[in-house]
Amino acid sequence: MSNQYVAKSRRLRSTIYSSRIENQGVTSYTIYNHMLLPAGFGGSLEETYNHLKNYVQIWDVAAERQIEIIGRDAYQLVQLMTCRDLSNAKEGKCYYCPIIDENGGMINDPVVLKFNSEKWWISIADSDVMLFAKGLAIGKNLEVSITEPDVNIMAVQGPKAFNLLEKIFGKEILDLKFYNYKYYNFKKTKHLIARSGWSKQGGVEIYVEDSKSGLELYDLLFEEGKEFNVKPGCPHLIERIEGALLSYGNDMGINDNPFECGLEKFVNLENDIEFLGKENLIKIKENGINKKLMGVKINLEKINLRSSIDLQIDDKKIGEIRSAVFSPTFNMVIGIAMINKPYFITKDKFDIIIENKKYKGEICDIPFV
Amino acid sequence: MSNQYVAKSRRLRSTIYSSRIENQGVTSYTIYNHMLLPAGFGGSLEETYNHLKNYVQIWDVAAERQIEIIGRDAYQLVQLMTCRDLSNAKEGKCYYCPIIDENGGMINDPVVLKFNSEKWWISIADSDVMLFAKGLAIGKNLEVSITEPDVNIMAVQGPKAFNLLEKIFGKEILDLKFYNYKYYNFKKTKHLIARSGWSKQGGVEIYVEDSKSGLELYDLLFEEGKEFNVKPGCPHLIERIEGALLSYGNDMGINDNPFECGLEKFVNLENDIEFLGKENLIKIKENGINKKLMGVKINLEKINLRSSIDLQIDDKKIGEIRSAVFSPTFNMVIGIAMINKPYFITKDKFDIIIENKKYKGEICDIPFV
Repeated sequence: MSNQYVAKSRRLRSTIYSSRIENQGVTSYTIYNHMLLPAGFGGSLEETYNHLKNYVQIWDVAAERQIEIIGRDAYQLVQLMTCRDLSNAKEGKCYYCPIIDENGGMINDPVVLKFNSEKWWISIADSDVMLFAKGLAIGKNLEVSITEPDVNIMAVQGPKAFNLLEKIFGKEILDLKFYNYKYYNFKKTKHLIARSGWSKQGGVEIYVEDSKSGLELYDLLFEEGKEFNVKPGCPHLIERIEGALLSYGNDMGINDNPFECGLEKFVNLENDIEFLGKENLIKIKENGINKKLMGVKINLEKINLRSSIDLQIDDKKIGEIRSAVFSPTFNMVIGIAMINKPYFITKDKFDIIIENKKYKGEICDIPFV
Repeated sequence: MSNQYVAKSRRLRSTIYSSRIENQGVTSYTIYNHMLLPAGFGGSLEETYNHLKNYVQIWDVAAERQIEIIGRDAYQLVQLMTCRDLSNAKEGKCYYCPIIDENGGMINDPVVLKFNSEKWWISIADSDVMLFAKGLAIGKNLEVSITEPDVNIMAVQGPKAFNLLEKIFGKEILDLKFYNYKYYNFKKTKHLIARSGWSKQGGVEIYVEDSKSGLELYDLLFEEGKEFNVKPGCPHLIERIEGALLSYGNDMGINDNPFECGLEKFVNLENDIEFLGKENLIKIKENGINKKLMGVKINLEKINLRSSIDLQIDDKKIGEIRSAVFSPTFNMVIGIAMINKPYFITKDKFDIIIENKKYKGEICDIPFV
């Protein structure tokens, strides 16, 4: 497989950290919400995986943009877009929410932060949720203002994350609960910090609104983190697939509904709330789904997946693999695949053809065990 | 400036041509509508520029996605999104249309194709117009279906484009007028071909719906094009800036309105049509604009612009440059800049600081002369 450089331009927006991570040796980028998101810092995938699982990393995840919804009808609009019941949402908590269209198709899978009933942030995956929200608000005459404020998230991830954070923010930060957020002082600037992040190794995401203070904090995290072997990093393919963290655009899209994506616990059909696609989701729940995201394990020592590949039984397509990587833990390739009915129940063995060679694989539950 | 590779994944969608252009030596990509768009094929920028201006190139511009709007209210929805009067739009013609929000801010600048009043394609620049259209349609209860069909455009651009096209499609193709489209037979498959493209060198865009036939056509264009020195190519930074072809996301965005972008000829405020932002645009027209896209010329021999840079007079910001390149024609750096009032009228000389050095520049009209 050949490699190509990223052609940089203003349209592929840099973050406030880009010049720092380029000095620190970032070697590859992906693009996420029209913005540069680091994808590698040299070293093998397995080396950086081991580092993330043992130490602490600082990630430039500013591409995880915020959509700010403010105004009298803010709650109504946010609720309209998600099948998760937010009527009792609390300030200080983060909510993972499927955003769906009128058919129940996935448009995004953000984390939603409530500040008060008239101010919300939607911390989005890679699609223009702002345009969807704007269209809905205009069409329904809602009294809201919808913008993308310049918030640049940096994540602190890894088992040593809280050792490092404690040095800077004091013991207080240790009390922050999972999927909660709170403001913490760094020198004279308040920073919103949430106990969240796109790894299973623990840590926080710092929603930097004050760039100057944020960059000072970034530098200090590396200075104070030396004793914990801190390194720059980024969401990690092995770690996220092993942890079954879904990736919008890779594992799921507008033609998949939350049930098919295994997100049924974020679908609230019983309550008296209004959201798009509710009737369709009720029907789907009654009739059952025809495909489902499952894990797969394949007898292979490496894979470079850049588009989906069909999975077959006796030359008949039974699903497609959408993300995959060699897992050091399982010592084979593991992946996330959309599997047709009834194979997501029967979990038969399948064939996959890669570079004209046929390999055997099996369907399994996620998270992987 | 350091270079980084593109980290490929299913989310950054490949096109039907990706494997071909990678065999042909594509060296860099940009991402456009969540899809790979080639940005270079080796050789200096000036070499590929000279080639485009003298011969013929085939471009994989499949990232220019189509949003298909079908249904009883299709015209109403398309018109709602653009300030250009489409009430008399004709089948067989292409319409460059600013898509704007309720404030008049630019959301996209696509080419719109009408098939009939109940079927339209919006050939989009880099933002999720589908989500905006869906939000509006849901909010206003419009009877439409909105999808992204799998259309993969290849462009044939350059002064020898029609010599090549004539060999394949016959003399008939020579009669196709600028910004018109028509179906042409290639073997037994019909292909929609429009006389358009993102260069000023002439040529067409082939909207490939039948991938198999499209790939056969792609290969034949290279075979038959040998005598015209055909090469693979892509939208070209020098050529497009010299030609003042605006790039959404680079030169303009949601905080700019069509008047500020010099697109007043695509704003129809007199007619009795309903579209978003109309009242605001009427006010803006009355009050005049506070900033405008202009050309700039700078005494510099090279530039690598990846974000906007302030332009100053006596240390005061008078605008920002958003795209720039060294132009062989003008033998200096030229660029597209958003210039504040009154400087877009007075066109004073300015300073620009690049890597701690100060350079002189001047404001000029676009197109450049």
